Amino acid sequence: MSSSFGHLFVVTTFGESHGPGVGVVVDGMPPGIAVDPAVIQQELDRRRPGQSAITTQRQEGDRVEVLSGLFEGVTLGTPIAMLVRNTDARSQDYEALRDVFRPGHADYSTQEKYGVRDHRGGGRSSGRETVGRVAAGALAKAALATVGVRVVGGTVQVKDVKALRRDWDEVEKNPVRVPDAQAAVRMQAVIETARDQHDSVGGVVEIVASGVPAGWGDPTMAKLDAMLGAAMLSIPATKGVEIGGGFGMSELHGSQTNDVFDGQTFRTNFSGGIAGGISNGAEVIVRVAVRAATSIGKPQVAATKSGDTTTIQIEGRHDPCICPRVVPVAESMMAITLVDAWLRQRALRGREK
Amino acid sequence: MSSSFGHLFVVTTFGESHGPGVGVVVDGMPPGIAVDPAVIQQELDRRRPGQSAITTQRQEGDRVEVLSGLFEGVTLGTPIAMLVRNTDARSQDYEALRDVFRPGHADYSTQEKYGVRDHRGGGRSSGRETVGRVAAGALAKAALATVGVRVVGGTVQVKDVKALRRDWDEVEKNPVRVPDAQAAVRMQAVIETARDQHDSVGGVVEIVASGVPAGWGDPTMAKLDAMLGAAMLSIPATKGVEIGGGFGMSELHGSQTNDVFDGQTFRTNFSGGIAGGISNGAEVIVRVAVRAATSIGKPQVAATKSGDTTTIQIEGRHDPCICPRVVPVAESMMAITLVDAWLRQRALRGREK
Amino acid sequence: MSSSFGHLFVVTTFGESHGPGVGVVVDGMPPGIAVDPAVIQQELDRRRPGQSAITTQRQEGDRVEVLSGLFEGVTLGTPIAMLVRNTDARSQDYEALRDVFRPGHADYSTQEKYGVRDHRGGGRSSGRETVGRVAAGALAKAALATVGVRVVGGTVQVKDVKALRRDWDEVEKNPVRVPDAQAAVRMQAVIETARDQHDSVGGVVEIVASGVPAGWGDPTMAKLDAMLGAAMLSIPATKGVEIGGGFGMSELHGSQTNDVFDGQTFRTNFSGGIAGGISNGAEVIVRVAVRAATSIGKPQVAATKSGDTTTIQIEGRHDPCICPRVVPVAESMMAITLVDAWLRQRALRGREK
Amino acid sequence: MSSSFGHLFVVTTFGESHGPGVGVVVDGMPPGIAVDPAVIQQELDRRRPGQSAITTQRQEGDRVEVLSGLFEGVTLGTPIAMLVRNTDARSQDYEALRDVFRPGHADYSTQEKYGVRDHRGGGRSSGRETVGRVAAGALAKAALATVGVRVVGGTVQVKDVKALRRDWDEVEKNPVRVPDAQAAVRMQAVIETARDQHDSVGGVVEIVASGVPAGWGDPTMAKLDAMLGAAMLSIPATKGVEIGGGFGMSELHGSQTNDVFDGQTFRTNFSGGIAGGISNGAEVIVRVAVRAATSIGKPQVAATKSGDTTTIQIEGRHDPCICPRVVPVAESMMAITLVDAWLRQRALRGREK
Repeated sequence: MSSSFGHLFVVTTFGESHGPGVGVVVDGMPPGIAVDPAVIQQELDRRRPGQSAITTQRQEGDRVEVLSGLFEGVTLGTPIAMLVRNTDARSQDYEALRDVFRPGHADYSTQEKYGVRDHRGGGRSSGRETVGRVAAGALAKAALATVGVRVVGGTVQVKDVKALRRDWDEVEKNPVRVPDAQAAVRMQAVIETARDQHDSVGGVVEIVASGVPAGWGDPTMAKLDAMLGAAMLSIPATKGVEIGGGFGMSELHGSQTNDVFDGQTFRTNFSGGIAGGISNGAEVIVRVAVRAATSIGKPQVAATKSGDTTTIQIEGRHDPCICPRVVPVAESMMAITLVDAWLRQRALRGREK
Repeated sequence: MSSSFGHLFVVTTFGESHGPGVGVVVDGMPPGIAVDPAVIQQELDRRRPGQSAITTQRQEGDRVEVLSGLFEGVTLGTPIAMLVRNTDARSQDYEALRDVFRPGHADYSTQEKYGVRDHRGGGRSSGRETVGRVAAGALAKAALATVGVRVVGGTVQVKDVKALRRDWDEVEKNPVRVPDAQAAVRMQAVIETARDQHDSVGGVVEIVASGVPAGWGDPTMAKLDAMLGAAMLSIPATKGVEIGGGFGMSELHGSQTNDVFDGQTFRTNFSGGIAGGISNGAEVIVRVAVRAATSIGKPQVAATKSGDTTTIQIEGRHDPCICPRVVPVAESMMAITLVDAWLRQRALRGREK
Repeated sequence: MSSSFGHLFVVTTFGESHGPGVGVVVDGMPPGIAVDPAVIQQELDRRRPGQSAITTQRQEGDRVEVLSGLFEGVTLGTPIAMLVRNTDARSQDYEALRDVFRPGHADYSTQEKYGVRDHRGGGRSSGRETVGRVAAGALAKAALATVGVRVVGGTVQVKDVKALRRDWDEVEKNPVRVPDAQAAVRMQAVIETARDQHDSVGGVVEIVASGVPAGWGDPTMAKLDAMLGAAMLSIPATKGVEIGGGFGMSELHGSQTNDVFDGQTFRTNFSGGIAGGISNGAEVIVRVAVRAATSIGKPQVAATKSGDTTTIQIEGRHDPCICPRVVPVAESMMAITLVDAWLRQRALRGREK
Repeated sequence: MSSSFGHLFVVTTFGESHGPGVGVVVDGMPPGIAVDPAVIQQELDRRRPGQSAITTQRQEGDRVEVLSGLFEGVTLGTPIAMLVRNTDARSQDYEALRDVFRPGHADYSTQEKYGVRDHRGGGRSSGRETVGRVAAGALAKAALATVGVRVVGGTVQVKDVKALRRDWDEVEKNPVRVPDAQAAVRMQAVIETARDQHDSVGGVVEIVASGVPAGWGDPTMAKLDAMLGAAMLSIPATKGVEIGGGFGMSELHGSQTNDVFDGQTFRTNFSGGIAGGISNGAEVIVRVAVRAATSIGKPQVAATKSGDTTTIQIEGRHDPCICPRVVPVAESMMAITLVDAWLRQRALRGREK
């Protein structure tokens, strides 16, 4: 279960960054939904390296192959397995790191957990694992579209630069994936500076789902907020998640944050579309704190397997800011979480609404 | 599964706020651990209403009865069921709310989800559901103590007042449960002002686990961060969670937040004790955003079942700041999450360390 | 999870035979279903000891208390917890057995598993655990009734006496619960002989569900046969399960056992209503092999904790044939399994049929 | 979850018989275990078609590719994905069956369940799905070998011919996989007769695990018998399962079937190595009822999608008796079930024994 997410829409990823390939099995996709593999590929293209000057220059084609569950263009309701081969994995880049625990990385904790590890590029804890999530997310989005739910996302903060607008059509027009063209320019500058200093920088990603009807999410332990919390914090490099008003609500009064509902709409949305763990019909809004990528070119002190320390410079080709590539992953995890909640609600009530 | 948390240490709560009682079944408690029911009661006393001038004045004895799983003072390894009867449930207080959806509450979303609801005091979405969590948390703490793990917590922010110290011995000495005596005084004043204005106020709770060995947490979907995210966001009134450096890391560089490890200790703990979803031996640190309690005495606009709006004043007896009572609940969810991760690691390696 | 059954309709039992009580939490009961606690009691009365001369003479009132999940006579969709207190538990009867492993019982394996055990009457492995199953089964039957599914069962074999008819209305009219009045008389004689010899005797129980629509059951690992296999073999004292033609089909040809379907009905039902793990619209038929009760009055050789052997005579008050009391338990497990499959199918298709 | 088996050792199969391929993801394989892909291939060779004159003459190479989870010959503790491409899938053989529901097959129930199906050769309900189970079983066997547990199996009945011996070394020496050379000859004759009549015939397969220590299996719902029941009845073409004395115990007395334990060994093994759902140290013995293969060449009446009937003759190349090929599958499911129980016991006790 460790690599599976979901209760009815179960997404199981597999693969190490430098093994034969990475992929996913999606079990629980409803039958009879038209799925075009080209659309899955499109989502993967949003995630893959080498898209722009501010992402890693590794060149991975990341061609997806659908191995099962589709027949004559339609889902069968059986598991959909998808595979992406690893091609540009320069394993030799990592040989020097065989007995070194890189700072910020999962090298040490992985070694302690399993007693064995694939030292090449993070192995299983590599961001490459998210290929499977995005492929699954493409299916989830296709399923949600049949009931009018749409998931969008973007980078809303890099270092201290914040997006002031939420113009989602803007996102794919700038390399940082910001829903605010002006902020995008400033964020890009911040990222380029970090890159030139052989450093990296953090940020915040926001994901919004519209069209979610009231009633999704399962109290008390599978509340929608809880499931979104797990979904987002399972993404590499994330260290915080907030729903709606989030941490900002800590500074406010109940008379301010109690969203007034007039029977049709909510006048505010501090709840982020979720009350008591159940969607209330307003937009579902999640923000994710993304730490600076741990792979940086600057010299760093690192522990070795033998208990000493050494100084390392991580060569490789890395992302100065991971946010633009987290966007499709976080969208995917939102979509996956919503499909699971949707199917659970269908089970509960026996009908679509 | 909706009311269950955990994979090997499975906590299932039951009960509505105004039904016969609330409780919990804990399945997966390791056998042979000494448990004193008085210690469970003690934890429940930290959660119950009526503890001080700044918590609700409802008087509920909250006496726990252990129904199974203990024999001659020791756990059997079988399910431990615990029951707390509801006694001070003034159901008539709520009759006027039968067809009204209170702002900020789960009334509307619950009605939409189930098509039926217990309108008295929130029913299942009431904070009263957390009685079962705290009883289970007491068991989890007892189990963790056998391997030297200790979980503590406190209120670290109320409105804009922040705790500057982490003196955990201070927590039970002030009614706000702050690990900083001076901040506690100021927070209490803020809460009292809110109470006098028939309002409520939000805050932040921090939970810290010490003694957690490296190796707990299961990539990629059951990462320790992810499980803690689900655990915390399943608590009523929470809208955000962060691990270690959390959202603050969004503004920093990799060269700042990559925790340097010298083979023995980490010089910083931006990771909050978790790298790649696996504990790394440092303290596990979680902060939870707590919104202002949604039950307030101020007049508010509310929607009715028939689609109109009305103005309500919630009588009842409510908490002006929920943080002091969230502390034992959040500690419990941290402890429960850690036991689950610990048992999974025992399964993986077949030994304690 | 060890004490939980089901994926969407989750039944978790708790309690030892000689602790404070036994019970169950049912999580996933659909909302809005009318449930009369008297009906639950009625089912428990079918299971309880002391019903006739051929069941144990222990007198346990077995009064059920519903602790949650019901409001104004209707299910809320929240967990339904139910408790039955233990009253006639003569613990002293068992003191002599503290360090003895009774033959056929789970005493030794329990001790080896947990390192600790409640030696009084089997503790958790006692048939008393099935109280919770039957209470949950009553809910499951109520849920199934809303979609026209009915579950019946009876004893169809005791020793070498077999029921030749399936007259389900006959079942409650004879103490062995046989759907064949003539066979019932002969079975009763066999049981009385065993009782008089301080011995016990085995048999077979058959459960039939009618009205199950085609489409329930989830290939490939949660096939309806597989889930029924787990359900039945989780009942104490069962050692075999077969669906439809079962073991008898091992001796037949495909041309005999391929159930011919004319588009409306199946001409035979060797498949027991399940093809490829999915219900096909025919009656679902399951038979369960029930071993002779392991508690017998005859002197037996038993191992002791210290590694010696001793001779014991189990005093207590025991069942010479467990079949009549297994009937309501097996019916319950069939009903529980079917509700789970039904809800999964609702999730898959988003509608009732 | 529909295609997943296990709680800690989770086996998820994927793939249709006539899609691109079939495979499996094994999540929860303990780290540090040496695994030779050639051994996995060997097990698959025991399952594949075309092994002898009495199995289907389809020629499928069934070459397995390990996609993840192995590094330098050792398991990483991460998911192990394995893929077998479909090569000899003559889809055109099935075109005539697009709108026909074959008798005994899952065609009709699949159509009713999903509303869509891959009509070519059974799709997901094809025996081809078991490729993934056998690959996973090879891993399970490798894991069990590290703690001295060995799983063997064979055909013990075909039609009315029964094996009288359990000479497990004999199994791979005859094409029916019988642990009794003499019975094997007679069984083969029975199968050849069925084949020549364009018919098929049923049988019984027995699986035995030796070396299982006392303590595996989790009462009350995950008892070892229950999990084995689910495991075996999830295999295509099985309709019954029994443990130890099984259905035969229905005819016996408690004084006969209570296995006497002298502190070291059990004098009988009616319990099949499992008491109260927990292994007791004796051999774990399971028998599985295998129905005659539903694909036969004889003319049969079949329903069509439009509600009429027609007469069909299934061309293809089919197995006259499925037992020899069920043996490695049932062994695999036993091994998988045991690994799961073993890991759960490690979690419970924190040590190997």
